[in-house]
Amino acid sequence: MMELLLIGIGTGNPDHLTRAGEAAIHEADVLLIPLKGEEKRELADLRRLIVDRIRPDAPVRAFDLPVRDAERPYLDAVEAWHDAIAEAWRGAIPAGAERVALLVWGDPSLYDSTLRIAARLDPAPRLRVIPGITALQALTAAHAIPLNTVGGEVTITTGRRLRETGWPKGAETVAVMLDGATAFTTLDPEGLEIWWGAYLGMPQEILAHGPLAEMAREIPRLRSEARKDHGWIMDIYLLRRRAAVALSLHRATRLP
Amino acid sequence: MMELLLIGIGTGNPDHLTRAGEAAIHEADVLLIPLKGEEKRELADLRRLIVDRIRPDAPVRAFDLPVRDAERPYLDAVEAWHDAIAEAWRGAIPAGAERVALLVWGDPSLYDSTLRIAARLDPAPRLRVIPGITALQALTAAHAIPLNTVGGEVTITTGRRLRETGWPKGAETVAVMLDGATAFTTLDPEGLEIWWGAYLGMPQEILAHGPLAEMAREIPRLRSEARKDHGWIMDIYLLRRRAAVALSLHRATRLP
Repeated sequence: MMELLLIGIGTGNPDHLTRAGEAAIHEADVLLIPLKGEEKRELADLRRLIVDRIRPDAPVRAFDLPVRDAERPYLDAVEAWHDAIAEAWRGAIPAGAERVALLVWGDPSLYDSTLRIAARLDPAPRLRVIPGITALQALTAAHAIPLNTVGGEVTITTGRRLRETGWPKGAETVAVMLDGATAFTTLDPEGLEIWWGAYLGMPQEILAHGPLAEMAREIPRLRSEARKDHGWIMDIYLLRRRAAVALSLHRATRLP
Repeated sequence: MMELLLIGIGTGNPDHLTRAGEAAIHEADVLLIPLKGEEKRELADLRRLIVDRIRPDAPVRAFDLPVRDAERPYLDAVEAWHDAIAEAWRGAIPAGAERVALLVWGDPSLYDSTLRIAARLDPAPRLRVIPGITALQALTAAHAIPLNTVGGEVTITTGRRLRETGWPKGAETVAVMLDGATAFTTLDPEGLEIWWGAYLGMPQEILAHGPLAEMAREIPRLRSEARKDHGWIMDIYLLRRRAAVALSLHRATRLP
């Protein structure tokens, strides 16, 4: 039975890698690296760089990542896309490989498809998941803020859902991932505060924080400038009702 | 200005430590280690063990962690407790220390008080947060499951809130932390599935998964046995509506 190692590598900072992640990179018979086309080349290169730093002679196999059909309904398109990626894995895995590793941005459990694609392999591989630092953790670390208020709830959602269904009912803290189109601009900003970050953990990291009423204009500007400069962007943000902000960090005014 | 390094160390597996966490342990002038009394001695020892493995000559200062007043209303008691802990830090930090490190279980952003206690220091230190693997990530990794369904929301909450306010409105996936009293047994189990784990990432790790209707009896039994054996327990769980389980892992039946 083939073993599949899904290694969370964090958000692009090689120092996010855990000792378990390093060990897994050393153990693998082959490491699969997806290529996403010119625009995201910097990201594929970053993956290579992380591998090279840990294990310069690592047996890497690059493969072209299929593209999701943006014309089809979302869940259907995702389903077909995952089928196509599983097919691409099959083509890239050398015959006889016993331990195949995939490097996953962030953590394999959070808004990542790798586990779902792995479930399409037949015969089923044995899975070993090595957790990694998520963009959400890189965001709260960079801002030095807690994710939750004291004893409070946190809702993690996507830009698509936030845009379609608005502020989650009763939520005080909402973390938004996979937002390619600044869904926060569609919310009533009254009483909301935002902590935003792009390229988290990387040298080009950008942070912004303030009342959503102000930042809903400022962040899209920062975002499109940065996207133009780098050719790509990955960002994430946390929103909190202002009444809850005090609970999240008592005596916050003393903080730098 | 003193720099305070809050280092997320994961859930007790030294291999959860990131390269950034290792580097921070090496950089510190002093590492503060709280002692929580006999019952949790194994945990304090584990922290020592992690430090010793990374930096055997590390300048460690242990201090007695004050106890939260269980008689007072929760938020008041937490407030006073954090004041007392900040006072204990002051007593433990040697005069002239420029870089003081605290090892935080999991990640400093998630249901952890260290950032709130740090905000009580006067003069305010400069904060550097080094993210670590949370129990939630150790749980999903151990079960090899995604946290979210495709494009779905996740609610992170506490045992206390789940017990007081029931299933969060509209939620499909709920992760529960800080539950000392099996709050899942207070839910209507119909249509819910549970993934539970204790001592995650440690040699004594225990996992359980199944329909809540069955597991609501089984898990408390496992839990109290393990607690008796080890003298302490740390556990966490994920609940998902069964209608959403298929979305979380298509073709899940093919998984081992």
